Amino acid sequence: MERFTIVESAHVVPERVVTNDELATFMDTSDEWIHSRTGIHQRHIVSNESTSDLATTVAEKLLAQANLSANQLDFIIVGTMSPDYLTPSVAQQVQGRIGATNAFAFDLSAACSGFVYTLSMASKLLATKYQRGLVIGAEVLSKLVDWEDRSTAVLFGDGASGVLLQQTVEDTGLLAEALKTYGDQSEFLTAGRQRNSNHFVGDIVAADPYFHMNGREVYNFATRQVPAVLSQALETAQLTANDIDVYVLHQANARIIASIAKRFGQPIDKFPTNVVNYGNTSAASIGILLDELRATGVVHQGQKIALAGFGGGLTAGALIIQL
Amino acid sequence: MERFTIVESAHVVPERVVTNDELATFMDTSDEWIHSRTGIHQRHIVSNESTSDLATTVAEKLLAQANLSANQLDFIIVGTMSPDYLTPSVAQQVQGRIGATNAFAFDLSAACSGFVYTLSMASKLLATKYQRGLVIGAEVLSKLVDWEDRSTAVLFGDGASGVLLQQTVEDTGLLAEALKTYGDQSEFLTAGRQRNSNHFVGDIVAADPYFHMNGREVYNFATRQVPAVLSQALETAQLTANDIDVYVLHQANARIIASIAKRFGQPIDKFPTNVVNYGNTSAASIGILLDELRATGVVHQGQKIALAGFGGGLTAGALIIQL
Repeated sequence: MERFTIVESAHVVPERVVTNDELATFMDTSDEWIHSRTGIHQRHIVSNESTSDLATTVAEKLLAQANLSANQLDFIIVGTMSPDYLTPSVAQQVQGRIGATNAFAFDLSAACSGFVYTLSMASKLLATKYQRGLVIGAEVLSKLVDWEDRSTAVLFGDGASGVLLQQTVEDTGLLAEALKTYGDQSEFLTAGRQRNSNHFVGDIVAADPYFHMNGREVYNFATRQVPAVLSQALETAQLTANDIDVYVLHQANARIIASIAKRFGQPIDKFPTNVVNYGNTSAASIGILLDELRATGVVHQGQKIALAGFGGGLTAGALIIQL
Repeated sequence: MERFTIVESAHVVPERVVTNDELATFMDTSDEWIHSRTGIHQRHIVSNESTSDLATTVAEKLLAQANLSANQLDFIIVGTMSPDYLTPSVAQQVQGRIGATNAFAFDLSAACSGFVYTLSMASKLLATKYQRGLVIGAEVLSKLVDWEDRSTAVLFGDGASGVLLQQTVEDTGLLAEALKTYGDQSEFLTAGRQRNSNHFVGDIVAADPYFHMNGREVYNFATRQVPAVLSQALETAQLTANDIDVYVLHQANARIIASIAKRFGQPIDKFPTNVVNYGNTSAASIGILLDELRATGVVHQGQKIALAGFGGGLTAGALIIQL
């Protein structure tokens, strides 16, 4: 067990809301079509904010809520697939902007499993040398969306979320984890191909910012592999599905979540979703949902919760956490 | 102390060599100018290889040298600032290509401190739950270089390197670390700005793949902050500079390394360099040098070595390792 406590959670989404109806004004789609297949009604899209802007807002909220100053942080890790730059990383920008002079910072690239992978790494830092740090998931996916491609444009949204984690001597923290990667299926979901076009290059690689997704394959992957990682993590923790109070899953598609709840014979109430309001925000989704559930008291101290991410890589991961 | 053993090391560079003299055929520069300021005579540049190609070759070498099969790996972490895609990550591509079915994989973005940050994270994984993994630094920086800008074009090269790490009960592994980030200075070294140009955006952000560097500021940063992180790590390990057998530093510039050796009052022999042959390969440089030093026996079991990375972010980091 890697001991830690979740001191605070926070999230932010851009003000600008883009509804399914608005998409239907310039794309051959409809609210009914999108909602029945994905559970999504709207998403938030940036006007001028960058990924580091959203992540910095989350970091500032976490510090204010905890009444901590930035120099009390030991690390900042940002899970993202939509950084502003290849260098500096988003986490390094955040570190500089909040003045976290004692924190080291880096980004972790694991797409929609980013929040789970990042939280896992943070748990290892807290279990060894470090006292306190931020785990943030931050995405501006709208810059990776081809807004002429209705098969992907309807799915994604922008946002950021995070948790402030701290070492503890209490019996809280990570009971078990199962992190898996399926790179042999990486071609089913790609985005942000970087160009290589200098005069030393044989075959020029053109830049292609956009998402390309085999929706059927990713759907099948998620409904098969998320139960697999959850089962593995439960087994390691010597728990059953009934022992988990709340399942906080990556919000890609409400149907995937319903399918997983059914697979475990669990009431759908234990699998809350908010994809209706945000779409798929990749590494930000689990933290946004977790923050909302903590605010309403659905998730609280003393519970056992399961987090599960899945998506690009392809990747999947489950964490069992004692709050 | 995080215990582990470096089982194997490996590196690869593209076949194509670009000498300073070749650069001088299409750029207003000269071998004398470049070499006197940086110590660089040549660099290796890809023709058709991608970052994941180079990283996969390193992974295959490591497994072959250790006589292990890919499914015996628990994790693969790649430090890179020049991935092929924003998703999948390089590490996920490598995982799929070598068939490391039991390994999870992700990229870590910390530019020229990538190798040190990545090795630190791996040490925490090995100190908690995992048995064995690969740490790889892989870069195709030539795609981020503006080959018309002589202030940066002469500095960088392509390559990849890695180590196979394993849990151990011996007293070897990480004696101490000092990881630092200086995001308030991030504008002194940027590369790979990602575009945001969809019709929801207010002010369009244009893509800019290229390096932009304030050479003087980065030089000053390196000569000040690398000694600082090395001193901090030595102090934590309760060692002095004399106790370190070999200093394996990020290879950005031979003059930076000479300045640091002098600062510590150490013979320059304890600060080997190979920047003359490769230029600055960012996250790959420390692993390339470490592999060459192990091959020639300069670095061997029983020694204490110090690794130090520095660069984009800005970031710096030092590790003291008992071999």
